[in-house]
Amino acid sequence: MTVSTDQIGDLARTHGKRIILSIDAMGGDEGPAAIVAGISRSASKNPDLGFIVHGPASTLEPLLAKRKNLAGLCEVRDVPDVVKMTDKPSQTLRSGKNTSMWSAVEAVRSGEAAACVSCGNTGALMAMSMIRLRKLPGVNRPAIGILWPSRSVHGFNVMLDVGADIRADATDLLQYALMGVSYARNGLNIERPRVGLLNVGTEEHKGRNELHEAGELIEGQAEAADFEYVGFVEGGDIPGDRADVIVTDGFTGNVALKTGEGTASLIGDRLKEAFNYSLLSKFAALLALTSLKRLRQRIDPRRVNGGVFLGLNGTVVKSHGSADATGVDAAINLAFRLAQSGFSDRLAKRIAASTTAAAKSIAEES
Amino acid sequence: MTVSTDQIGDLARTHGKRIILSIDAMGGDEGPAAIVAGISRSASKNPDLGFIVHGPASTLEPLLAKRKNLAGLCEVRDVPDVVKMTDKPSQTLRSGKNTSMWSAVEAVRSGEAAACVSCGNTGALMAMSMIRLRKLPGVNRPAIGILWPSRSVHGFNVMLDVGADIRADATDLLQYALMGVSYARNGLNIERPRVGLLNVGTEEHKGRNELHEAGELIEGQAEAADFEYVGFVEGGDIPGDRADVIVTDGFTGNVALKTGEGTASLIGDRLKEAFNYSLLSKFAALLALTSLKRLRQRIDPRRVNGGVFLGLNGTVVKSHGSADATGVDAAINLAFRLAQSGFSDRLAKRIAASTTAAAKSIAEES
Repeated sequence: MTVSTDQIGDLARTHGKRIILSIDAMGGDEGPAAIVAGISRSASKNPDLGFIVHGPASTLEPLLAKRKNLAGLCEVRDVPDVVKMTDKPSQTLRSGKNTSMWSAVEAVRSGEAAACVSCGNTGALMAMSMIRLRKLPGVNRPAIGILWPSRSVHGFNVMLDVGADIRADATDLLQYALMGVSYARNGLNIERPRVGLLNVGTEEHKGRNELHEAGELIEGQAEAADFEYVGFVEGGDIPGDRADVIVTDGFTGNVALKTGEGTASLIGDRLKEAFNYSLLSKFAALLALTSLKRLRQRIDPRRVNGGVFLGLNGTVVKSHGSADATGVDAAINLAFRLAQSGFSDRLAKRIAASTTAAAKSIAEES
Repeated sequence: MTVSTDQIGDLARTHGKRIILSIDAMGGDEGPAAIVAGISRSASKNPDLGFIVHGPASTLEPLLAKRKNLAGLCEVRDVPDVVKMTDKPSQTLRSGKNTSMWSAVEAVRSGEAAACVSCGNTGALMAMSMIRLRKLPGVNRPAIGILWPSRSVHGFNVMLDVGADIRADATDLLQYALMGVSYARNGLNIERPRVGLLNVGTEEHKGRNELHEAGELIEGQAEAADFEYVGFVEGGDIPGDRADVIVTDGFTGNVALKTGEGTASLIGDRLKEAFNYSLLSKFAALLALTSLKRLRQRIDPRRVNGGVFLGLNGTVVKSHGSADATGVDAAINLAFRLAQSGFSDRLAKRIAASTTAAAKSIAEES
């Protein structure tokens, strides 16, 4: 059923471009079956994928055996423990070395896998990723970046941080801007992304002091780092077309993300109720089925599932805890695209260049 | 066409329960015509309403004259100036005494009107309201509270602050909780509201320090002020059913509000596009028209238009700047309901009682 990484290495050499992803099969709300179903779905569409799957072998082997299309594509790393959603990050660092999550991150550190995907506890995953992969030189706080359905021609905006850290000072926000620009370039193919700084108004005098300082820092790097700074943006611009990259602290970003998801979910349910109201409305819904499916495809949050940890030596994708097979599939696709584009190395170079440039400009000023 | 307040006073005495509202007819994005249309719509449904309308008489008189149903119900306060959306609040305090906004707030201060409605510049309206109406004894920072469509049986949750002040410490958040409880009781008829404190996770260890402190303060007042404290809530709970009152600082609340509005608007547009895709989908849309209208009625943001300034000696309702007649009508209805329930006085008593209780408990502890 499963093959060793050596064999996958051989496969990769044979195929020329196989990319190995490290998958934490435990810790999601839907259990390992949903995650294996997601792996299977990805593999069936993408012949360039191989997997190292982490968790208790006694649980995973039978689930993998049922998926014929995964034969020869998965290696199981047998680890007994699971990080729970309620575990504190600090706890898991002390006693989590035998968890599927730790093992999944470790496979990226060792270079066996190009990227890691987990549906588990966000805080624990970030803590383990920071300890094992280490921050990029020049990065103070890593961030979690997501893609948000938007009115832009690309269909999505990047927003960060959505919850890696609850605080961010002006320098952190500048680094988020640079990381977000790299993500937009590699994840959405936007050559010269537009960057906006999230605030309570677009007027220059509005908002907190650190935002004014951050605005100046970001504007100062725009030319060197080849992006456009559009100034302050508001919550309504997150799904809008004024900026491709929305920069904010992890507290605000997390609240905005969950508010947007909650609002979309409420409207979706109300839409169903509206069409279930009477016989006539049910008949109309039947006729409108294709239209409604088209709508769902465009706004389904599962299709943009996956927060990317930015600012580390290695790519880690955090899938929604409640992701089903469709959601896991989306997170795996995202990890694959980023691994294929060499995103992690490009981001490292970009941060290094900006840090040098900033140091140089400070040296010149003094 | 118009009558003096003395005459309105007579009308009120005759009718027994006429409520006079003070309307800033200028400063909205849609101009005074939309505001007069909103006044007319409200008046046609509610015989208990009378108005003092503020702005240049040469502009307002002709607009009012066109609305036959407003005959005898409106007094025009002729003031020449208008607060612009781009004006800084501090500026308008210095030179804004001849603006329609100042005049509209002044009519509440003098007791001529029971509440004020404006579509203008939020910062200026808050600054003028604070200067003229003054804060309630015991209130440090006033807040703006809104109603948010939700899964609760009441159909709405209260959220505050959505932008009166970009900062709030633990004591401010406690006051927001008390003000939100009063609003939920008077605006939504919820006897014992459930209060949640907005955070990035529901676990006790998550989030900023001031939130932990605020949580303890709010919990400590729950019994005396007759509400239930449900602990931390997340962005997804704003349109959810875990809490009736969502407490947060004005920066986070403003971003959440605008993110929710932007998301709803994006989905609405995508829905239209989906139904405009082909001939068949257009036909389906025609059949589904009643269902779609029903949906729109339930999620139309114009129907819940109106942020209420809480913590002042008097009721001020801030309508969305871009409100059309439907939106202005909704804001007027809200102001009427609050005026009728004696909300302002009840809130003042509640805050006074809590301040005394808090002082007493501190005295007992020391």
